[in-house]
Amino acid sequence: MTHYLSIKDIDNLSVWVKEARILKSQPKADKNLGANKTICMLFFNNSLRTRLSTQKAAMNLGMDVMVMNFGSEGWTLEYGDGTVMDQNTSEHVKEAAQVVSQFCDIVAIRAFASLTDKEQDEAEVVLNGFKKYAGIPIVNMESSVGHPLQALADAITLEEHNSKERPKVVLSWAPHPKALPHAVANSFVEMMQLQEADFVITHPKGYELNPAITKDVQIEYNQEKALQDADFVYIKNWSSYKEYGKVLNQDPNWMMTKKKLGSAKFMHCLPVRRNVVVEDAVLDSDQSLVIEQANNRTYAAQIVLKKILENL
Amino acid sequence: MTHYLSIKDIDNLSVWVKEARILKSQPKADKNLGANKTICMLFFNNSLRTRLSTQKAAMNLGMDVMVMNFGSEGWTLEYGDGTVMDQNTSEHVKEAAQVVSQFCDIVAIRAFASLTDKEQDEAEVVLNGFKKYAGIPIVNMESSVGHPLQALADAITLEEHNSKERPKVVLSWAPHPKALPHAVANSFVEMMQLQEADFVITHPKGYELNPAITKDVQIEYNQEKALQDADFVYIKNWSSYKEYGKVLNQDPNWMMTKKKLGSAKFMHCLPVRRNVVVEDAVLDSDQSLVIEQANNRTYAAQIVLKKILENL
Amino acid sequence: MTHYLSIKDIDNLSVWVKEARILKSQPKADKNLGANKTICMLFFNNSLRTRLSTQKAAMNLGMDVMVMNFGSEGWTLEYGDGTVMDQNTSEHVKEAAQVVSQFCDIVAIRAFASLTDKEQDEAEVVLNGFKKYAGIPIVNMESSVGHPLQALADAITLEEHNSKERPKVVLSWAPHPKALPHAVANSFVEMMQLQEADFVITHPKGYELNPAITKDVQIEYNQEKALQDADFVYIKNWSSYKEYGKVLNQDPNWMMTKKKLGSAKFMHCLPVRRNVVVEDAVLDSDQSLVIEQANNRTYAAQIVLKKILENL
Repeated sequence: MTHYLSIKDIDNLSVWVKEARILKSQPKADKNLGANKTICMLFFNNSLRTRLSTQKAAMNLGMDVMVMNFGSEGWTLEYGDGTVMDQNTSEHVKEAAQVVSQFCDIVAIRAFASLTDKEQDEAEVVLNGFKKYAGIPIVNMESSVGHPLQALADAITLEEHNSKERPKVVLSWAPHPKALPHAVANSFVEMMQLQEADFVITHPKGYELNPAITKDVQIEYNQEKALQDADFVYIKNWSSYKEYGKVLNQDPNWMMTKKKLGSAKFMHCLPVRRNVVVEDAVLDSDQSLVIEQANNRTYAAQIVLKKILENL
Repeated sequence: MTHYLSIKDIDNLSVWVKEARILKSQPKADKNLGANKTICMLFFNNSLRTRLSTQKAAMNLGMDVMVMNFGSEGWTLEYGDGTVMDQNTSEHVKEAAQVVSQFCDIVAIRAFASLTDKEQDEAEVVLNGFKKYAGIPIVNMESSVGHPLQALADAITLEEHNSKERPKVVLSWAPHPKALPHAVANSFVEMMQLQEADFVITHPKGYELNPAITKDVQIEYNQEKALQDADFVYIKNWSSYKEYGKVLNQDPNWMMTKKKLGSAKFMHCLPVRRNVVVEDAVLDSDQSLVIEQANNRTYAAQIVLKKILENL
Repeated sequence: MTHYLSIKDIDNLSVWVKEARILKSQPKADKNLGANKTICMLFFNNSLRTRLSTQKAAMNLGMDVMVMNFGSEGWTLEYGDGTVMDQNTSEHVKEAAQVVSQFCDIVAIRAFASLTDKEQDEAEVVLNGFKKYAGIPIVNMESSVGHPLQALADAITLEEHNSKERPKVVLSWAPHPKALPHAVANSFVEMMQLQEADFVITHPKGYELNPAITKDVQIEYNQEKALQDADFVYIKNWSSYKEYGKVLNQDPNWMMTKKKLGSAKFMHCLPVRRNVVVEDAVLDSDQSLVIEQANNRTYAAQIVLKKILENL
């Protein structure tokens, strides 16, 4: 394995989840694996969980860590071919990627969707630029299209809390004041397609995710109906994909409540806006798995880094 | 011991000072104590001395360090209970604190007073939010109300330079162009209340610190009188507490001068505005202890972290 | 050796280059040399290569690294003597330098030219302020006047790719939309004056570098003539020195092209604006050494830090 760009880079999800859970029980067991290896974490967007959990995972493996915030500490990169760079971009990703890769063994990158240019977002210019030119393994710390470290942590969390052979898992859209990317939802959908589960997506009309990702996953526009007999409910806002990046709906009736949740477990990637996306009563209940999902971010990152290190 | 939130968390000041001075003489002696332990330093405000000295102290103890600037690298947290988070806050401290605590063993936090809302400042929402929800030891790297790492460094410095059984120590207000918090003055006052000393506070009328903190400490409005026969003069600006956060006075006559200082030692927490708070002649003289105070920040942080690590 | 402020701090360039190349072949060989030593990297300006390569070099030597961005994480320093600091500066370099030096063993500093005040830029107030007051070795990570880590990396790169006893090396100005500093060009010129080479500088009239630096180096205003039979062509934009900081010329005919380059090797310090400073065809050809120059930044920094550590 070389890169971890999407859920598709996992060759066997259930094996990875098992191995991640073993790491969780003894996080420092591989402390020599990363000795004399360096990870460079490049942030084109802000981060809390991803920043700290990935750094922690790298340190658990004995790696050196370098962090760079491209916005405040660097400059704007150019991604186009043949561009006459006489405007706002100061360096081409061709150079930046080749250069950075000489200072480290693995590059982890966070670069969100613009939500203004679908084509450019789907081209994943930052991630793919580094993949093309860096020549070393790239880890996706959330890109325009996916957030596979989050989805892997979600898979670990599901495995820890699931007691059924075929649980019912519902991904439900929720309202939010801002236009948010599709990355978390996309990767969760891709991950669920690798699971034994009854998986349903529910959202208002107009909020269909990219059909190339959802494929034949059942979409149910009636949230109440979708939630019936759910074992796990994953809540997430995203903006419209069709009317790209638009907020079409802020209907508070789509907020998750204790009543709607029933006896299901509640999941969310965080950060979450309380009483907008989900009410306090859910987050403050024992049914909420959000803190454990965040905890598992460390072990998701650690199993990914471990597999990359073993193949360097 | 679990937290280091204020001077009150020191069980025996003179013992801590002694132990800090031993650490100072052999800073790497406990290098294995922090092995496989991580401190996460969260900055809600800028920092130079605190950032570097706390990081150095942690490294001296063999800890891993993660630094996060919430402003430029993260987002705005919510502290209110039951808030409908449809405005500027993106994550509740309930989640942030629980999550961060999973990635480390100790959290150190800097969060200044707003100086606009006394009630909220005194509630110490950031520090207390993390204390309530993090479930791991919290270290105060300057909060609304206190700066106990500074005061502990000041105690070490006093001990190093004091030759009397009962020295006279004066805390004198000084002018400043901006409204500054009360944190440093508050913690210095609390620390002095644990010392054998004649302790006097002097400032213009209207600059009384919180009487719940100063208690029965002598307040002398005549600076000249206060400074008579002083052994140590601690200079610090703060804004009005009564007319909360207001600058009532910028009278340059309150600036500390070589003449006023006499033969006393000069102390200040830094950063200091030269020739506004204190004249060059004082800072550039042998009577100034400010550089040594800053140096002792490392050992103040180190004794605090050491005690926390020993009780983990 | 104590400081690395300019090329003049290299006692024997060819020996340093040789030693750097040995380090390059075994970068972790001196991993114990920096044990229990800390470097503090202070950035007053943004940085990618310098940030990562210097950090990597320090880690290769086993040092602890602390990074501080003065702009976003700190405040504005004062450099003047006797200033009444009632304006925008919050701390004097006298205090800042003395304080920082207590938390580390080496300070590395990046502080660009303002390009508005020649006298102040040439006084190198940041670098010289820290040199004067820190009392520990200072490393220049690009100052107003020089970028000696870059020039040392350039010397390593030249040595790696040169096969002649006396190669012809041309430093050619190129157009750029913004006013850029003279630091890289200055240090390259100073470094070339220590080399066996035919060295020519070419630029439009009005772009003469400081004659105190270029001394008797040949200046040829006709780029075509200058480039004849060149073995190495170093391209760099800089603003006018005479009309300090002005952009006098953006003539695209000065852009480097494959045709002009002939069979010479191409060098640039990066970041570079493609198709403004140099055309794609050059950067994407085998004649470009820019990625190797960036790679050698690590070993330039490492030999400098090694020599400093050996003399601590």
